[in-house]
Amino acid sequence: MPICQSVSVPEAPSCNNAQLELQINPSFAYKYLESETKTMLSPDFSQFTLFHLFLKSCLSFLEYQMETLTSPQQQSSGPITRGCQWFKALPNQFCDKTMEIVRKTKKLGQDDPRRIVHSLKVGLALTLVSLFYYFKPLYDGFGDSAMWAVLTVVVVLEFSVGATLGKGFNRMLATFVAGGLGVGAHCLATLAGRKGEPILIATFVFIIAVIMTFMRFFPKMKARYDYGLLIFILTFCLVSVSGYRDDQVLKMAHERFSTILVGSCASLIVCICVCPVWIGEDLHNSVATNMEKLGNFFQAFGDEYFEVSEEHDQSSENNKSYLQGYRSVLTSKSSEETMANFARWEPGHGPFGYRHPWKMYLKIGNLTRDCAYKVEALNNYLNCKIQTPVEIRGKIQGQCKRVSLECSRALKEMASTFRKMVRTRSAIVHIDSSKEAAEELKTLLRTNLWEEADLLEIIPAASVASLLLEIIECIEKISEAVNELAKAAAFRNGNATVLPEQPDSIHQGEVQNDSNTAMPVPHVAIIVAE
Amino acid sequence: MPICQSVSVPEAPSCNNAQLELQINPSFAYKYLESETKTMLSPDFSQFTLFHLFLKSCLSFLEYQMETLTSPQQQSSGPITRGCQWFKALPNQFCDKTMEIVRKTKKLGQDDPRRIVHSLKVGLALTLVSLFYYFKPLYDGFGDSAMWAVLTVVVVLEFSVGATLGKGFNRMLATFVAGGLGVGAHCLATLAGRKGEPILIATFVFIIAVIMTFMRFFPKMKARYDYGLLIFILTFCLVSVSGYRDDQVLKMAHERFSTILVGSCASLIVCICVCPVWIGEDLHNSVATNMEKLGNFFQAFGDEYFEVSEEHDQSSENNKSYLQGYRSVLTSKSSEETMANFARWEPGHGPFGYRHPWKMYLKIGNLTRDCAYKVEALNNYLNCKIQTPVEIRGKIQGQCKRVSLECSRALKEMASTFRKMVRTRSAIVHIDSSKEAAEELKTLLRTNLWEEADLLEIIPAASVASLLLEIIECIEKISEAVNELAKAAAFRNGNATVLPEQPDSIHQGEVQNDSNTAMPVPHVAIIVAE
Repeated sequence: MPICQSVSVPEAPSCNNAQLELQINPSFAYKYLESETKTMLSPDFSQFTLFHLFLKSCLSFLEYQMETLTSPQQQSSGPITRGCQWFKALPNQFCDKTMEIVRKTKKLGQDDPRRIVHSLKVGLALTLVSLFYYFKPLYDGFGDSAMWAVLTVVVVLEFSVGATLGKGFNRMLATFVAGGLGVGAHCLATLAGRKGEPILIATFVFIIAVIMTFMRFFPKMKARYDYGLLIFILTFCLVSVSGYRDDQVLKMAHERFSTILVGSCASLIVCICVCPVWIGEDLHNSVATNMEKLGNFFQAFGDEYFEVSEEHDQSSENNKSYLQGYRSVLTSKSSEETMANFARWEPGHGPFGYRHPWKMYLKIGNLTRDCAYKVEALNNYLNCKIQTPVEIRGKIQGQCKRVSLECSRALKEMASTFRKMVRTRSAIVHIDSSKEAAEELKTLLRTNLWEEADLLEIIPAASVASLLLEIIECIEKISEAVNELAKAAAFRNGNATVLPEQPDSIHQGEVQNDSNTAMPVPHVAIIVAE
Repeated sequence: MPICQSVSVPEAPSCNNAQLELQINPSFAYKYLESETKTMLSPDFSQFTLFHLFLKSCLSFLEYQMETLTSPQQQSSGPITRGCQWFKALPNQFCDKTMEIVRKTKKLGQDDPRRIVHSLKVGLALTLVSLFYYFKPLYDGFGDSAMWAVLTVVVVLEFSVGATLGKGFNRMLATFVAGGLGVGAHCLATLAGRKGEPILIATFVFIIAVIMTFMRFFPKMKARYDYGLLIFILTFCLVSVSGYRDDQVLKMAHERFSTILVGSCASLIVCICVCPVWIGEDLHNSVATNMEKLGNFFQAFGDEYFEVSEEHDQSSENNKSYLQGYRSVLTSKSSEETMANFARWEPGHGPFGYRHPWKMYLKIGNLTRDCAYKVEALNNYLNCKIQTPVEIRGKIQGQCKRVSLECSRALKEMASTFRKMVRTRSAIVHIDSSKEAAEELKTLLRTNLWEEADLLEIIPAASVASLLLEIIECIEKISEAVNELAKAAAFRNGNATVLPEQPDSIHQGEVQNDSNTAMPVPHVAIIVAE
């Protein structure tokens, strides 16, 4: 803030009004100051950019405060009045602001208590590593370079084990290789004599920086080794350039590597031993949750579209939230990809073995998203302008609701067994019933049941029906992908309790795959007993 | 690699076969080694984790090489034969591999030459900053801390100006504040005597680390100040902890801040002065390109759905690529948000002034994506199983194609004027014509023109028609958002050349907004003359 004040008010050769406006309206103030400083300062570009930067941030902050603290009524009055009102309201607004921050903090912690644990873990790891400074025997081993260990902990210790392992491994390997290369470059450069050395070193640094920076653009490199390439450039410069002033290059390279090893190990130990957060588990749950969200939509859709529950009671409120849940699925691609990248760094843990097929999660994710796009289209018909009259909709109500409900059951069943890592084909039962209902729906549509009605009014309901038919295929694809994954990841077989249900099924073969019975038996529902 | 070898073969108490398998099949080798080492090593967890890490990476690399270098036929033969074949094929495969990398590198550079420029810029900045080490007068000013300047350049210099400014500013501010706080903490701790000092410092470090780490979870903080908070923890630890061994804390804090200032300034100067990449410009272009992609889809859709071009000529190939372009729009959300976050750091440049409304780009982006979801639904009907017979489709062909074509024109017109930052309402003309065609289509649908046909077969074509009607609304919303942005960002007014076109328009008022004429004039097409 001192920068703004020292430049603005005292030296501004303008009238009182402009000064007042300056204090009240930061946006105006900025433009005013910018023009003032442009004429005042020498045209040193870097200085101006920096100054500009500080100014901009100060004013953004001020403006933000003003926007949040002044009410719309106040903004219509004069600048002096507004200033006074703003100043008067400050203590109250400050209290409100503090309360809001406390509330947000509490919510953030409640939403995911692992965040609090992670913060404590970072504190713990840093305190542990700084012991190197306090105990003389430890300090004597590393000396001032012990600081690199602290630095490493701050940078490497991430929220999840996968991210920490990835970063730690990248940092260690890159430091090791680049350190060695740096020492080599230094030795080579000393051969060129005192005058040739800096030129040779500078050339090396330039070449390595250019190559490594370009390598960071390769998508595969970016996904897994981005941080490593950065540290490679860093360490190489550090070791080779320092060599010009300090002849103990080897010692330095060794110190840097060993301190980074200590820091990385401390981070890894704290990350893995104290309430570890496995990102692979998060990915697994997120994929299951996405399926569940689609299932929730289908559960609520039938009632909502055919307007069964007219009264706004608790269940209707539930429906509303169910119907909106799928929206987060639409944009989940990038977060899933990030999670899968990190998950590949994680060693086997719990039910997730070594070389767990994380890539297949992306396939299921993509299929779920394709289904979500169709759900988006379906959702549009809920709020469509041209709506099919209720009595016409009523004619396909039964079948549509059955399809929707069976889709919901299939998705939820899949999500639940997938989450538990059980390998069953129990969702097939629901997919089959939805197919049966779909066939009935098709037959119904073929009978020209709306002959007397206006085609334009029929279209929405007919589109809904046809979308539901397509969605069944989508869900079948998801089910196949889930089965593939279950096979590849060797999910355990569910203890299938076989209950006879409908003797007139048409898909007995598929359901019976697990039990391998040769005789045709009645249609079954498989209940998984954990 | 030495780790694997020293542990595995000599000490493994197993038969020859297992050893061979070990050399050929890394996955088996890993499981074998894991069980061996678990029994062999003391249960020191950290050691095992690290060992595991190195082992895993070595084996992943081996396995990757095996997978890429051995053909499927080879994989069916015995392990020894496979090994020999693999070894023989090595030189050839190496050549192929090298050629592939060269080809990929060339493509990466051709796709976006700015990548090459950026790599050269990083090399340049690093070489410049390392001059501090070579010239004695400069070195004497900073001493060994000059290394922090090199380090800063490596970390801060990013591809775009926005990202570099954001990181540089975060780093400078955080170092300044945390350095001051660190010195304060050190002074406070010395009051507690030699024994109390480390305890007090450790407590401070713990508290600061916990609070700052938790603050990184706030979404707003994460978006803009994540890096700053990290550097805050880092610098605070560095200064306060070092103070225990080195009494010149103030000097150290000052040195660290000044070297980081030098490094950040060098990065900023190189980033801004040498072929700057403005991320705001990228965002602007990406939003325009997304609109264009949807426009391309609609241009190709009419012909594709009503199968005009049966022969597979050049234009049909073009159509195929046009029809797939929209898919990247579906998943553009996260990249747009990142770009908008960085763009807000950039000072005014070219046509983008100070406080350019970057947030409004996100709104346009969201509306474009909503439209893309509908396009996805439309695209599904191109490959639908149940297809409306051609003769039935023919009845709505004219109107549907007109709607699609006018939508395409509207989107392309918007994209083109938006890209040039011209404020016109010329797209309205096309939206209006598409509305006219839509009205005709509605009337046509109301006349029950498919009375004799099977409803199930009608549904796809009817759904396409109804989707097209909805899409017009979508495009209108995009157009409104674009106009809002044009107003907020003060796009320049297009020199509208007014050409009389169709005297029977129904939306004269909207088109005439800019010229403010009170008299009704004929429907116009506005051509923007740059």
